[in-house]
Amino acid sequence: MSLTNASPADAARAAKSASHVLATLSAEARNDALTAIHAGLTAARDDILAANARDLELARQAAADGKLSASLVSRLDLGKTGKWEDMLKGILDVRDLEDPVGRVTLRTKLDDGLELERVTCPIGVLLIIFEARPEVIANIAALAVKSGNAAILKGGKESTESFVAISTVISQALSQTSVPNGAIQLVTTRESIPQLLALDRDIDLVIPRGSNELVRYIKDNTKIPVLGHADGLCSIYLTASADPKLAADVVVDAKTSYPAACNSVETLLVQESALNTVFPAVAAALAAKGVELRCDAASKSALSSSNITVVDATPEDYNTEFLSLVLAVKTVPDLSAAIAHINTHGSHHTEAILTSDKDEAERFMSAVDASGAYWNASTRFADGMRYGFGTEVGISTNKIHSRGPVGLEGLMIYKYKIRGQGHVSAVYGEGEGKRRFKHERLAI
Amino acid sequence: MSLTNASPADAARAAKSASHVLATLSAEARNDALTAIHAGLTAARDDILAANARDLELARQAAADGKLSASLVSRLDLGKTGKWEDMLKGILDVRDLEDPVGRVTLRTKLDDGLELERVTCPIGVLLIIFEARPEVIANIAALAVKSGNAAILKGGKESTESFVAISTVISQALSQTSVPNGAIQLVTTRESIPQLLALDRDIDLVIPRGSNELVRYIKDNTKIPVLGHADGLCSIYLTASADPKLAADVVVDAKTSYPAACNSVETLLVQESALNTVFPAVAAALAAKGVELRCDAASKSALSSSNITVVDATPEDYNTEFLSLVLAVKTVPDLSAAIAHINTHGSHHTEAILTSDKDEAERFMSAVDASGAYWNASTRFADGMRYGFGTEVGISTNKIHSRGPVGLEGLMIYKYKIRGQGHVSAVYGEGEGKRRFKHERLAI
Repeated sequence: MSLTNASPADAARAAKSASHVLATLSAEARNDALTAIHAGLTAARDDILAANARDLELARQAAADGKLSASLVSRLDLGKTGKWEDMLKGILDVRDLEDPVGRVTLRTKLDDGLELERVTCPIGVLLIIFEARPEVIANIAALAVKSGNAAILKGGKESTESFVAISTVISQALSQTSVPNGAIQLVTTRESIPQLLALDRDIDLVIPRGSNELVRYIKDNTKIPVLGHADGLCSIYLTASADPKLAADVVVDAKTSYPAACNSVETLLVQESALNTVFPAVAAALAAKGVELRCDAASKSALSSSNITVVDATPEDYNTEFLSLVLAVKTVPDLSAAIAHINTHGSHHTEAILTSDKDEAERFMSAVDASGAYWNASTRFADGMRYGFGTEVGISTNKIHSRGPVGLEGLMIYKYKIRGQGHVSAVYGEGEGKRRFKHERLAI
Repeated sequence: MSLTNASPADAARAAKSASHVLATLSAEARNDALTAIHAGLTAARDDILAANARDLELARQAAADGKLSASLVSRLDLGKTGKWEDMLKGILDVRDLEDPVGRVTLRTKLDDGLELERVTCPIGVLLIIFEARPEVIANIAALAVKSGNAAILKGGKESTESFVAISTVISQALSQTSVPNGAIQLVTTRESIPQLLALDRDIDLVIPRGSNELVRYIKDNTKIPVLGHADGLCSIYLTASADPKLAADVVVDAKTSYPAACNSVETLLVQESALNTVFPAVAAALAAKGVELRCDAASKSALSSSNITVVDATPEDYNTEFLSLVLAVKTVPDLSAAIAHINTHGSHHTEAILTSDKDEAERFMSAVDASGAYWNASTRFADGMRYGFGTEVGISTNKIHSRGPVGLEGLMIYKYKIRGQGHVSAVYGEGEGKRRFKHERLAI
């Protein structure tokens, strides 16, 4: 790893070159490197926390001056209970995951002595752009090494001291291993971002970790594929056949367990025939948790005899990711209308239906155009750890490559290998005297 | 299918909307639509060939005036022996492929009564931009319907009459099926291309079928993912341990069996120690087939006692996709130098090594950064039909999603479904009284 003063173009070229070596290392060599990083960080705990304290001091001043949010200051703090330990444990957790490199996913006998094999391999060079949280450096370095990808890391300026301290330790640790120098590149200047985003020849994938604004800026300013999501406008469709208690529990969890999360619900679609049956109980449970309901006329009317105060919804409310205790409520006649609303207004993240009707649930899950489609479960389950992936690279709303919570698999691609014995193509064909391919599927 | 005079934006929106219905159709419904297309085209043979003859007449005039290449005229001709029959057979071949939609690729028990499932589904809306060959319309329409994707088709102006004739028939055929109107949109004006390429909200994937220039233009002018390759700069590394006869056969096939193909070899890397042993036989076989060798000093010198005339290579020759009977030859000291050359100068398409040393071959296949890495086989095997995929959407040199020859799988993504019983996220965690996820891998 090198803390580079090189130009972004040179850093990217060096990363690309290192990626070609990294891709050929054995699982043992990559795991040993993770062990070395863990040991290095463990030994350097005091120095790193001291550096982090300097970042924190500046950030607290900036917050006091109103230039930085308190939540950003909080995310900076590596000294918070459990954070340091979690960071270190995360490195070993990643190390102990199944090796994603070199998995054979297809084997075909093309002809006698001619075999085709599809094998997973690293994508190449990742560009990771993140904001405040310094522990992301260790996490991403671990993911990159484990998956055999080189990485260029660009951190936020608020965490510069922590960033340099952690990365210096990782650098020293890796220099004792077979991971090539240059496999992990660090870039600290903000001006480098546009330059990096233009390097589509050497950088294969951008992974932003930060605010919606950061992701949107990056998506709008690069031709390199971006893994992530700018928006998380999740909806729940409440049907007349839903159990009221179940519905209230799920909607309350989806809205209130972490309102700022991308997988929190932002729009509640209510079946017209549920307005006076299931809906009032759900609305009451939400109101009891302090949720502001922004209702259309019909849903407002359904609550008129209750003591729940609601706000009139505007059209823009149905396109808004509130990220707070606000929920847009809209009445729809039926399943088709709910699906149409979601597919038009949603962000293709995670959608849920609450119903007792299995067929209706299956139709909903098949038709909504989203990375997650749930039946009688909270949208908040959309998460790589909750899915059991062991680690999470991010949540993608892309329509190609990786969708939904992305684990190590999202950092992999594949190549085709053919092993022959001097086979040539011209002898194969349909005509007389031509050889035919055998195309026998072989066991993996 | 609608032959639209609508704006590109309206066409794309209509395709997106139709895609949401198409994605929910059963395999039977999609296959029935393909049967209907096949029957419609069979019945309309004479009309379509007459329309094609009108295109051909104009194209022949343009060719006579020097405004169009003879090869383009030849690609236009649907009346050529076997072409019509191949087009029709292709539709049934696609219909009879295994259904790519709804395959379960992961199942996990998250907790009692809470199951996660990953299921393949269509990507959404494809934009297909192709040049002369009118049979591509039928082929792509079939692939789109089979994979549950909507498609916007933009053909070249030379094939307009054929394009309209074929698509009118497909349109009528589909109107009798459950495939929604609007699932396949046709656009005929050239001016629409830049507009379509800007519609990244409604179009999910662009597939260009045509010249390198077309692909490069598209890649440079859209943020929508592009499936394809602009370049096919394939190399073969000839080592000292290669069998001379095997090497000559493979290199001759890779260079001469179809020089204009993207998977033909363009650079021959020769191990220094092979210059006076294996190389002369390979060079003689190439020269006998009329291949012009552009050699560096060392490889030229190795042929000085032969009667093979060679041309001095320029640096640019090692970055050139000749697409003709020209081959750049470069001497390298060893495997590492060969890999470094390929990873720097290649286009990440298909590379081969000719060697008797298994370890060397495996190292080469692991280290070259390409969609195909072959041992003792011709680069010309890089092809979806030859790989046994049944159909080919294109060959991708992308580093994410699909790489190498792409079959129907490349038109698919997946979604996660969760089936619960009112499960909420807040009860799970590490602390006291919290539930733990079970994360049991279930059989698929």
